[in-house]
Amino acid sequence: MDHGRDQTGGPREKCGVVGVSLSERSAARPLYYSLYALQHRGQESAGIVTHDGFQQHSHVEMGLVGDVFAEDDLDQLNGTAGIGHVRYPTAGGVNTCCAQPFSVSFKSGSLGLAHNGNLVNADEIRDELEGLGHAFTSTGDTEVIAHDLARNLLEADLVRAVKKTMERIHGSYSLTISHDDVVLGVRDPEGNRPLCIGELDDGYVLASESAAIDTLDGDLVRDVRPGELVVLDRDGTGFDSYQLVDRDNTAHCFFEHVYFARPDSVIDDSLVYEVRRTLGRKLWEESGIETDVVMPVPDSGRAFASGYAEAANGTTAEGEERPEGDDGVEFAEGLMKNRYVGRTFIMPTQDERERAVRLKLNPIKSTVEGKTVTLIDDSIVRGTTSTQLVELLRDAGAEEVHLRIGAPPIVAPCYMGIDMASREELIAAGQSVDDIGEQISADSLSYLSIDAVAEALGESRADLCLGCVTGEYPYDIEGETTDRDVERPQIGDTSLVADD
Amino acid sequence: MDHGRDQTGGPREKCGVVGVSLSERSAARPLYYSLYALQHRGQESAGIVTHDGFQQHSHVEMGLVGDVFAEDDLDQLNGTAGIGHVRYPTAGGVNTCCAQPFSVSFKSGSLGLAHNGNLVNADEIRDELEGLGHAFTSTGDTEVIAHDLARNLLEADLVRAVKKTMERIHGSYSLTISHDDVVLGVRDPEGNRPLCIGELDDGYVLASESAAIDTLDGDLVRDVRPGELVVLDRDGTGFDSYQLVDRDNTAHCFFEHVYFARPDSVIDDSLVYEVRRTLGRKLWEESGIETDVVMPVPDSGRAFASGYAEAANGTTAEGEERPEGDDGVEFAEGLMKNRYVGRTFIMPTQDERERAVRLKLNPIKSTVEGKTVTLIDDSIVRGTTSTQLVELLRDAGAEEVHLRIGAPPIVAPCYMGIDMASREELIAAGQSVDDIGEQISADSLSYLSIDAVAEALGESRADLCLGCVTGEYPYDIEGETTDRDVERPQIGDTSLVADD
Amino acid sequence: MDHGRDQTGGPREKCGVVGVSLSERSAARPLYYSLYALQHRGQESAGIVTHDGFQQHSHVEMGLVGDVFAEDDLDQLNGTAGIGHVRYPTAGGVNTCCAQPFSVSFKSGSLGLAHNGNLVNADEIRDELEGLGHAFTSTGDTEVIAHDLARNLLEADLVRAVKKTMERIHGSYSLTISHDDVVLGVRDPEGNRPLCIGELDDGYVLASESAAIDTLDGDLVRDVRPGELVVLDRDGTGFDSYQLVDRDNTAHCFFEHVYFARPDSVIDDSLVYEVRRTLGRKLWEESGIETDVVMPVPDSGRAFASGYAEAANGTTAEGEERPEGDDGVEFAEGLMKNRYVGRTFIMPTQDERERAVRLKLNPIKSTVEGKTVTLIDDSIVRGTTSTQLVELLRDAGAEEVHLRIGAPPIVAPCYMGIDMASREELIAAGQSVDDIGEQISADSLSYLSIDAVAEALGESRADLCLGCVTGEYPYDIEGETTDRDVERPQIGDTSLVADD
Amino acid sequence: MDHGRDQTGGPREKCGVVGVSLSERSAARPLYYSLYALQHRGQESAGIVTHDGFQQHSHVEMGLVGDVFAEDDLDQLNGTAGIGHVRYPTAGGVNTCCAQPFSVSFKSGSLGLAHNGNLVNADEIRDELEGLGHAFTSTGDTEVIAHDLARNLLEADLVRAVKKTMERIHGSYSLTISHDDVVLGVRDPEGNRPLCIGELDDGYVLASESAAIDTLDGDLVRDVRPGELVVLDRDGTGFDSYQLVDRDNTAHCFFEHVYFARPDSVIDDSLVYEVRRTLGRKLWEESGIETDVVMPVPDSGRAFASGYAEAANGTTAEGEERPEGDDGVEFAEGLMKNRYVGRTFIMPTQDERERAVRLKLNPIKSTVEGKTVTLIDDSIVRGTTSTQLVELLRDAGAEEVHLRIGAPPIVAPCYMGIDMASREELIAAGQSVDDIGEQISADSLSYLSIDAVAEALGESRADLCLGCVTGEYPYDIEGETTDRDVERPQIGDTSLVADD
Repeated sequence: MDHGRDQTGGPREKCGVVGVSLSERSAARPLYYSLYALQHRGQESAGIVTHDGFQQHSHVEMGLVGDVFAEDDLDQLNGTAGIGHVRYPTAGGVNTCCAQPFSVSFKSGSLGLAHNGNLVNADEIRDELEGLGHAFTSTGDTEVIAHDLARNLLEADLVRAVKKTMERIHGSYSLTISHDDVVLGVRDPEGNRPLCIGELDDGYVLASESAAIDTLDGDLVRDVRPGELVVLDRDGTGFDSYQLVDRDNTAHCFFEHVYFARPDSVIDDSLVYEVRRTLGRKLWEESGIETDVVMPVPDSGRAFASGYAEAANGTTAEGEERPEGDDGVEFAEGLMKNRYVGRTFIMPTQDERERAVRLKLNPIKSTVEGKTVTLIDDSIVRGTTSTQLVELLRDAGAEEVHLRIGAPPIVAPCYMGIDMASREELIAAGQSVDDIGEQISADSLSYLSIDAVAEALGESRADLCLGCVTGEYPYDIEGETTDRDVERPQIGDTSLVADD
Repeated sequence: MDHGRDQTGGPREKCGVVGVSLSERSAARPLYYSLYALQHRGQESAGIVTHDGFQQHSHVEMGLVGDVFAEDDLDQLNGTAGIGHVRYPTAGGVNTCCAQPFSVSFKSGSLGLAHNGNLVNADEIRDELEGLGHAFTSTGDTEVIAHDLARNLLEADLVRAVKKTMERIHGSYSLTISHDDVVLGVRDPEGNRPLCIGELDDGYVLASESAAIDTLDGDLVRDVRPGELVVLDRDGTGFDSYQLVDRDNTAHCFFEHVYFARPDSVIDDSLVYEVRRTLGRKLWEESGIETDVVMPVPDSGRAFASGYAEAANGTTAEGEERPEGDDGVEFAEGLMKNRYVGRTFIMPTQDERERAVRLKLNPIKSTVEGKTVTLIDDSIVRGTTSTQLVELLRDAGAEEVHLRIGAPPIVAPCYMGIDMASREELIAAGQSVDDIGEQISADSLSYLSIDAVAEALGESRADLCLGCVTGEYPYDIEGETTDRDVERPQIGDTSLVADD
Repeated sequence: MDHGRDQTGGPREKCGVVGVSLSERSAARPLYYSLYALQHRGQESAGIVTHDGFQQHSHVEMGLVGDVFAEDDLDQLNGTAGIGHVRYPTAGGVNTCCAQPFSVSFKSGSLGLAHNGNLVNADEIRDELEGLGHAFTSTGDTEVIAHDLARNLLEADLVRAVKKTMERIHGSYSLTISHDDVVLGVRDPEGNRPLCIGELDDGYVLASESAAIDTLDGDLVRDVRPGELVVLDRDGTGFDSYQLVDRDNTAHCFFEHVYFARPDSVIDDSLVYEVRRTLGRKLWEESGIETDVVMPVPDSGRAFASGYAEAANGTTAEGEERPEGDDGVEFAEGLMKNRYVGRTFIMPTQDERERAVRLKLNPIKSTVEGKTVTLIDDSIVRGTTSTQLVELLRDAGAEEVHLRIGAPPIVAPCYMGIDMASREELIAAGQSVDDIGEQISADSLSYLSIDAVAEALGESRADLCLGCVTGEYPYDIEGETTDRDVERPQIGDTSLVADD
Repeated sequence: MDHGRDQTGGPREKCGVVGVSLSERSAARPLYYSLYALQHRGQESAGIVTHDGFQQHSHVEMGLVGDVFAEDDLDQLNGTAGIGHVRYPTAGGVNTCCAQPFSVSFKSGSLGLAHNGNLVNADEIRDELEGLGHAFTSTGDTEVIAHDLARNLLEADLVRAVKKTMERIHGSYSLTISHDDVVLGVRDPEGNRPLCIGELDDGYVLASESAAIDTLDGDLVRDVRPGELVVLDRDGTGFDSYQLVDRDNTAHCFFEHVYFARPDSVIDDSLVYEVRRTLGRKLWEESGIETDVVMPVPDSGRAFASGYAEAANGTTAEGEERPEGDDGVEFAEGLMKNRYVGRTFIMPTQDERERAVRLKLNPIKSTVEGKTVTLIDDSIVRGTTSTQLVELLRDAGAEEVHLRIGAPPIVAPCYMGIDMASREELIAAGQSVDDIGEQISADSLSYLSIDAVAEALGESRADLCLGCVTGEYPYDIEGETTDRDVERPQIGDTSLVADD
């Protein structure tokens, strides 16, 4: 599956969030660089909100981080504390209203919110707040959280107010919040989306992925725990932790490791690159096939293919030691990616359509011609690209094309913040693996098992959100099946801010 | 005083508002054309909000009307009802946050607000609402009105809710409001800013100035009355009127007639062009002087100069019938305006500074050389331009330059929605007319009297806001003197929505 | 006829040119300001070429002067000598290739050319040069002149080379030329387009119109004579004159005075504003009619109407002294112009079409309603606008609408550099004045006579280009009649550079 | 060395060229897609010139291919024949004047030229042409070629005219030319820059690299031969070949294979990807070192590292068979590239400088920590990036960092069309490999030998341009040493078009 700015098929992560609190240095540049490091999580809009102790500053615009911020903009974002956000491209055109961070002023000061995830009960809370006279300028979840938090802060301190809000909202959320010049991080009780804490020489940082911390030359402290509130000290010397909500099980999104996250990020204690190599090794073990050459779909399949080939050189497809003289399979690049195919590309006309994929990926004939080929990718969503690639390799002279996928079949949509595809569009929804293989004209097709994924992540199935590969979700979603007894209180159980 | 896009000295009107309700036709184009007609009231941003019965549509951007809306944008603004807004350029750079109409959704639907004016108690109401948990995304008055109205609508019908809000907010406001697909117009109880009603073939329109109605080929019905709420029928067949608040006196802004409004607009029953010609005639009567030629400052002084010259040709400066053979004064253009001097102009360096005014206004030598000249303008704010023009005419060979101004000296700032200048910048603040004349090097200088202004407008002084020429205001402004017993209730007198 | 950025009907001047040579000061800013003053002569592109003694600098772009040049651009245009150009909007979209000044380097240095006018034998010279191996990057006249001049400069000094080129090219041209850091001005032997010389404190300036000289605080020295070459001294202390070509008659374009030029410019010894007032007076004398009110089409008819009204107040339409008590006609503005209707305007749909003109011009009812009206304009091209204005005034209640035009009927196209209209589009081509009046529904219509135009300009008919009002041209144009024995040598008569 | 849009150190290819002649289909889209495929050869400007049999069409602009062309632009580029060009970013800012293709009209029609390379005698030919009266609008080589060709075409047919021009110009050039609707390809007699011929279903294509042919679903026919002129048939059915100039030796640029070209292109009969893998294998053979892990600098070192690791797994560093149980070295990604770091990136402040490289490349700790590392790259120019990467890996915990480079040290600048660096900036100019290793703090550093490069390319040293690694050039360059007896005729030997 293709990573990056491309809009033709891959699932898209909703957002990336950051937060920074420093002793003396302005927070704007560290926020800018960490958003740059998280650009793969959202290319539609970017924004930074800072607070200088007296006043909140905000700069939010449509576009890539590098286009949204000029040097002047950073200079005007005063203050040693702030948060940032990048947002994914929507299908139906740009949507200014929902660019983030969302910022408001209210009785006790100002709030900035950056949100990654998706609430399942936003409408109910919005209705309740509207019933109390609230007016909303957008249709997004984030404004709902902001209003709820602002209300709770009328009568409670910061920690209790956040707790109240966490008890009311349900779904997937990793949040960075600025309350005046105090920066907070919150992760939903199931820990669906990632969020981690980093230490800098002169402060602390919160980020969706640890690669952002690396970019600032900082050290990863640890993941924010599911249900935890982290409050960064104003002076950049530390942070306080509040475990506000507890659940028996987490619902980590395994797709972060398979596709979304950067390979150099550590999420929930696992390095993404190593997880992908392990998934590749398991893929060889589960469904390895001896072919002349193993090649990745660039760039998404590269780590998988590297693990797969490494395992293949150790043991045969039957799992036995390779006999002397058997050099195993060749690992090579067989498809070259044109890195310049971007947003403004003019689509070929109908009769040139088959040539379109050649603009993006071109086979290297010497690696392919007259050979049996195993092509490795991370996942298949609609199947369109896979079909084209198989055809491309055949046209380049491949004798056989076997497809091996480092994740289970995606059979159901994601409701937790990823714009993957609707059920109708998913090639694996209601279709056997054999049928899929036939549809994409591969000589053989195998996916990885769910158990292998859980093993590679070192987590039990019960602690993963597997909705997209099982159709059973760890959250209460209208029209879908739940995979657990949800501890979710009824709306109304928790008054806005009552004694507790 | 110079009218238009220029940013160098003239007072600037805060905004223009419109609202339209049609039987079947889409409201977007009529709103667009009427905003075009009101472009002189605001060049910073433009916006339209419509409602199609199911959903609100909004398009608001920085820029001129012609740049903000493309044909596609209008096509997407569905619905037969909507409102629009143009906003003036601020001193300190563009300010996206406050572009209007402001739109929110709340319990009973959606609201759009377009506001011309300035509240004097917005902060108090904002504080009160924040105390109830409200969070604000901007610092503008309009969001305060929107939130207050949304709260009131929780427990009251539309008319009573508007009444409640009108009883709580104080200051200058002409509002067009869309509540779903119902369009409303509200004018503050003193009627400070203009707002009028027009009838189209297939609907009704509300607009800051009647010229916008003309543009739509409609007929001016009448001004909205101070304290009145006008609700346009959904089907475009009429409107309902509710006189919600009464005051003994109005506080019409006389400067609308002197400077802001288009000459072809009728405001509070007076045609602006005729008022200006009358002011010019009175100027001749009060302080006429016999010179070889009378010339306007283009374009602001033209109507004044035309009235002045007409009167001068009827009677002598002493008010007597002209003797036979006395052809009176010559009325001619003596200064040519370059209509292309715009926003992006590169300012001359210091030593070229004196040449800068020549780019904008160039004397016509034949009209000026060797002659005594009377130069007519509508007003003087800082005096910079007047000084330059007097010097320009002298350089072009004028023997004498007499300046006649069709309004009284501006001695105090405006708090009612016009960004005029601070007291320190006003040349007439704390200085006699003789001293001003000396400062700008005119051979003589005369202003028009306040009484003449009131007469020309056909209103008593008590019904005008004369704050900028007297320093006494019809509203309670901190640090300023009030010119009347304000009927203003204390904050807290009116509960949000109580029985009444 | 409407002046300015509007694209719907008026003739459009091809270009404006300037040239500056200063003692020490950089030429870029004076060139910039003088182009600003000539912006009305071309809004499509703007450019400046300077030379610092070592190197030529050029900045040419599509757009208005204010948009084309940023402060940085001016800073990089080094040198005390240079030329500039503004270009008119073409019908068929922007055309980057032909933006000027055109600059080339050749054997003896570099050339910059800015051209106003139109050659009638450009194709022949181009063919000849191509036969000698020349390759052209554009289709414009200016590159032809540049190549020819470059060739001539191989064997002749500057003055002789220019003379050779002037003997070869035919048609209408006012040129400013930079040959390295020497600035030249050339006017075609018939003096069709204007060009004048101005003196600054520290140098000399050449410009299409004297208003540009005023803008630089300079003094008009005189017009460049037909057939004259003016060479500005490098040190800004003076200029040399060479009368290179002589003709018996000039062919001044009278339309410069009627419409194109700024009222504050002096062209061929006449102040444009005064010429227009005189034309207005003659219009009263030739075809005055007594109505309640006289009003100009703004802004094009204003000076004409002012002269007309002045004359009308002196004598009756029959040319007699006004009796006592007869105050003559009232002179007032009856149509208000919206100065914001610009390029990006979205056109009304078909059924809103009749409302379109209201956006641009709105009648002032008090001046019009129940009155007989005389409407004054400078010229009629297609007649579309005139028809709309007559209808507009009738709708506003005018009892009669009489149209008086300050120029003769335009019956033929212009080939001398003005994009007026084709013969088929001209309302007066092949139609009597009565028929035109009927077509535009005026109660009466009168034009001014050609003789009156010649008198107002103080020139004999033989010295004017009257092609557009007579259909007979002072140049040899294929398919058209010539109004004189053209002294034009045959191509080939003049070798490129021979002894002479 | 880093490939792509980055501007901080890598050499930059001057250009990419294409040409297309089809039977019926419009050439614009195939040209567009092939430019897309060559985007890596130039990101500053892009352009297409077509000819429809009657008229030439041109669209050339600054920017990336995807930004320069909208669908409308392609639609207006009529004709079945045309050429295209992409141009590299210059150091000193964008330079509109030299964007290509360059197009002119002349006696016998129109010419379009797209040029990749650099002439060494352009100034002399320009002087000669200026002496004949030619005027030039730019300072580029291409206009010189165009003028010379236009002159020659006056008296000679196309083939003879091209031959004449080839005999006069010296240096490096691959040209695609359109003469009206005939498309030509020319490669300089030394074949310095690549150019190849491809066959489509309905026509023929010329392109700098075969990957562009693949993109059009075409087949590579062969390279254009050094000194050859290829003329595509108008009807797309074939092409004619003319061997116009012969030399004893070629001077192929080996750097095309090492760095510039796409891995999937075949240049001079060698697939670039395979050449790089071979260079990697030879690098192991020449200077392999046993470390825990081998990792590429992404993306430039990947193919090299893959060959290196493959060889390392076959034999030990001493060239012996690996003993049983010795699994060889691990091949893994140790540096992750952020693909979003683009042009508009705000540079870190001085004290954040060391963090800058982390934005672009982030180490994967698990691959690096506690390990001995071999880092593979293709080349070193200034050495800045290499120094940073070594430091980066050490900071990430690498115990040793050994650098292996798949090309010889670059000791001299390139004059043949690559903007590599000046001699002073080259880290290897006048410094031993040991000193370089020390300067970049590597534990060891080895380059590949020149002989190994020649072997990998299958060419003798005498047929390669090795100027940048030997300081001796195959062309006569002022101030540099020549590596051969240049057959170059004196200027003047060849008259413009004489009998021959």
